[in-house]
Formats: sequence, C-alpha cells, structure tokens
Amino acid sequence: MGCVPISLVGLDADDTLWHSERHFASIEERFRNLVAPWITETEAADRLLERERANLEFFGYGAKGFTLSMIETAIEASNGTIPTEAIERLIEWGKEILAHPVELLPGVAETIDALDGDVRLALITKGDLFHQEAKIAASGLADRFDRIEILSEKSPDQYRQVLGRCDASPSEFLMVGNSLRSDVLPVIDIGGHGVHVPHQLIWGHERVEREGLTVDWHQLDEIRQLPDLVARLNEERAS
Amino acid sequence: MGCVPISLVGLDADDTLWHSERHFASIEERFRNLVAPWITETEAADRLLERERANLEFFGYGAKGFTLSMIETAIEASNGTIPTEAIERLIEWGKEILAHPVELLPGVAETIDALDGDVRLALITKGDLFHQEAKIAASGLADRFDRIEILSEKSPDQYRQVLGRCDASPSEFLMVGNSLRSDVLPVIDIGGHGVHVPHQLIWGHERVEREGLTVDWHQLDEIRQLPDLVARLNEERAS
Repeated sequence: MGCVPISLVGLDADDTLWHSERHFASIEERFRNLVAPWITETEAADRLLERERANLEFFGYGAKGFTLSMIETAIEASNGTIPTEAIERLIEWGKEILAHPVELLPGVAETIDALDGDVRLALITKGDLFHQEAKIAASGLADRFDRIEILSEKSPDQYRQVLGRCDASPSEFLMVGNSLRSDVLPVIDIGGHGVHVPHQLIWGHERVEREGLTVDWHQLDEIRQLPDLVARLNEERAS
Repeated sequence: MGCVPISLVGLDADDTLWHSERHFASIEERFRNLVAPWITETEAADRLLERERANLEFFGYGAKGFTLSMIETAIEASNGTIPTEAIERLIEWGKEILAHPVELLPGVAETIDALDGDVRLALITKGDLFHQEAKIAASGLADRFDRIEILSEKSPDQYRQVLGRCDASPSEFLMVGNSLRSDVLPVIDIGGHGVHVPHQLIWGHERVEREGLTVDWHQLDEIRQLPDLVARLNEERAS
C-alpha cells in the first residue's frame, strides 16, 4: 500500500484497559432494587438512562453526574416519597464507584509491553478529570504512555486536537477501544484507523446501531491481538 | 539582575479572568436558608465546608461535588427530615452554577491584549474538566492562549508537568491568580514567579494563613496592572 506506517496508537481506558462499566452496572442494579417499590426494573433503567442523557449537557460524563441523575430519577419515580436515607445511600454508592480499585483487563499489561518501542502510545480517555487521573495513577500504567489525554468528549474535533498535540497525522494514528461511538467512528471520520475491542458491558449511551454503517474498522476479540494487527498493518504499508 | 526574562505567563481562570465564586456563594446563601429550620447560618456554612473538604478525595473540585456535598449536609442537618423536593431544588441550583453565563472580570480583555505577543500565555485552571471547558469556550478567550491546561489540582508537581509541556523553565514562568494557595505558593515552590490578584470572594478551602509565610510574591490590586509588572520585571532582568 506504500503509505505511512502507524506510529501512534491511542488506547481508551475504561473497559479497554480496566473494568469500569461493571462498577456502574452493579450500582445501577442496586438502584433498580431501591426504586422497585414504585417502578419496574425496565422502567428504572430507561428512566435513568433518559435522565443521564438529558443531564449530559450540564454534567458531562462520570460518576458524579451519574449519582445526581440517580437521585433525580429516584425522587421522581417515587413521587417524592423516597426516604432521604435512600438518597444518602445513593451518594455512598457514587463514592464507591469513585473509590473502586482499578482492575486491569486480561492481556493489557502484555499488550502494552509488546507495543512499547514500536509505536508511541497515548492513553485517550473521556470523563471526569479527577476520577480518570486517580484511575490512571492507580493502574500503574501512567509511565508506559508517551501521552495521556483526558477529554470531555471524544468528538472528531477533539481527536484532531490530540493529534495536533502529538504532532501526528491521522493516517499514522490508530485508536483502540470498546466503544464504536467514542473510540472508532470519530477517528475514522478524521482519517485515522479504528480498532474495536468490545467489552461485555456497554453503557446505553455508547451503543450504536451498526446497520447502515459504511465505514471500515478493525475488529478484535481481545486486546492481546493488537500487537499482531499493528505489525501486520505496518508490513502491508511497507510493501 | 541578568536572569532569563519572563516568557510564559500563566493565568488562572475562575475569579481571575471571570466570576465564579459569586455563583457558588449565591447558591450557598440559598442553601443556608433552606436548612435554616434546623441549623444556624454559621453552622450551615461550617458544616458544608467541612463536608466539601472531606469529599475532595472522592469528588475533586467543582459544582457537581459541591451539589452532592450540599445534599449530604442538608440531609444530615435535618436528621433526614428535609423533604425530597428540597433535594431536587439543590440539584437544580447545582445545574444553575454549571449553566451560568461567563462574565469576564474588569480589565481582563485589555490585559490579554496588552500581554499578547510579548509573552506566551497559558490559561491554567483546576476543577471540573467539562465545566471548565464550557466556560473557556463561552469566554471567547480560548484563541488568545498558546496553551490551555485544566488540572485536577494545582500542586507543585502539576505545575512542573505544565512547564514540561510548555517547554519552559520555572524562572521564565509567572503565574497570576486570585488564590495564594493554588496560584502563587506552589509556583514559588518550584522556582517560578507568583502574582496574587485578590478577588472579593474566596472559597474557604482556598484561604491561607499569611502569617509566617516567608516567600515573596507580587501583589496587584487589579489584573490590568499586570502588563506593566511584566514589563518592569523584564527590564530589571535585562539590565
């Protein structure tokens, strides 16, 4: 193909390098039980997601906004009759998410070892600055990255700015993550390469309808297949 | 003095470039009224600050953590008897802070005009990534800065990292802001220059006991005095 080799690999963090959604999901399960006296599980899930989406413009992503959305949904669902003790519990659960130990996903450490030296590595995540920094520090991986970017949103424009700061062109950039919506599609949109490594759990807001998508991305079952993919792509490019 | 000239000026944002604390203060006043049936105004202020401080390790800075701290304090102060309607109101007030229009402080636009070209300008703020970015965008000033840094904490180490990213040494860096604790002392700690421009209002957590402080910073009454200060310092350095 004779094009520039991939020299910068961006890795998403939550549910790509470490578990995140399962902490939210387990709190959400408790939340559904908490409001079970008033609404069904499905209603609880739907209303919470709707509320989170409506609140994105105020809160952005992250556990604090999630907690505030749970409180609003619980009060509304109970017609204001939920005891304040339950609201205190919701805040405690929010703190539980924020204080949760970081557990790396299988294969992450080896993958970073294998890529290191061949390409520059950037950790590119979105959400709450404070919580993301805490998780990066706790992961023990911070030193392995040439660059760490915590974004408020993973839009094409924000990726373009990241590439500017990394002094890299889209064609030499490959982004890896569990969210088609955040990690793959916006990167392809600006002319970069996207690798989707699905995680068992995904937040409703990140789900994308695949039908009708006409763009091409690389699909991997596991992150440990990534070094081979990068090597293969760069061989094709060299030939 | 014959040392390197100041080539990078860092400007804090909240209550240095635009109003922030007064939005929090006005909501806090409403909060004190809301809990007036149970505790005095002073108690309300003290308990809220105490709660905010205790929650910093979970929430970091910003309006979402502030809102959650208000809710916890209100429930506790009322022994759980506060109506859920009041809790909904607290969340609405939190959103009010987050959606508040950005109002530049007097002299800010002229000061940036006057400095522009002579030195590189960096906006260096801390707090909630999402809210800070929204305010920077709404301020219309984003393009005036060579660099924008949103930090989770303004520690000596974080300033050191900023200087690394700006490729600047501490001795050529001057930081300007309304908080001695966040904008001045940590910068002097790493060998940079600090300029304190007080704002009428300051959050309790940012207050510093000045007695016993043995470091030297520059004190200005108004930000519009900054270009003259920088010019004077650089003349001294050139001579």
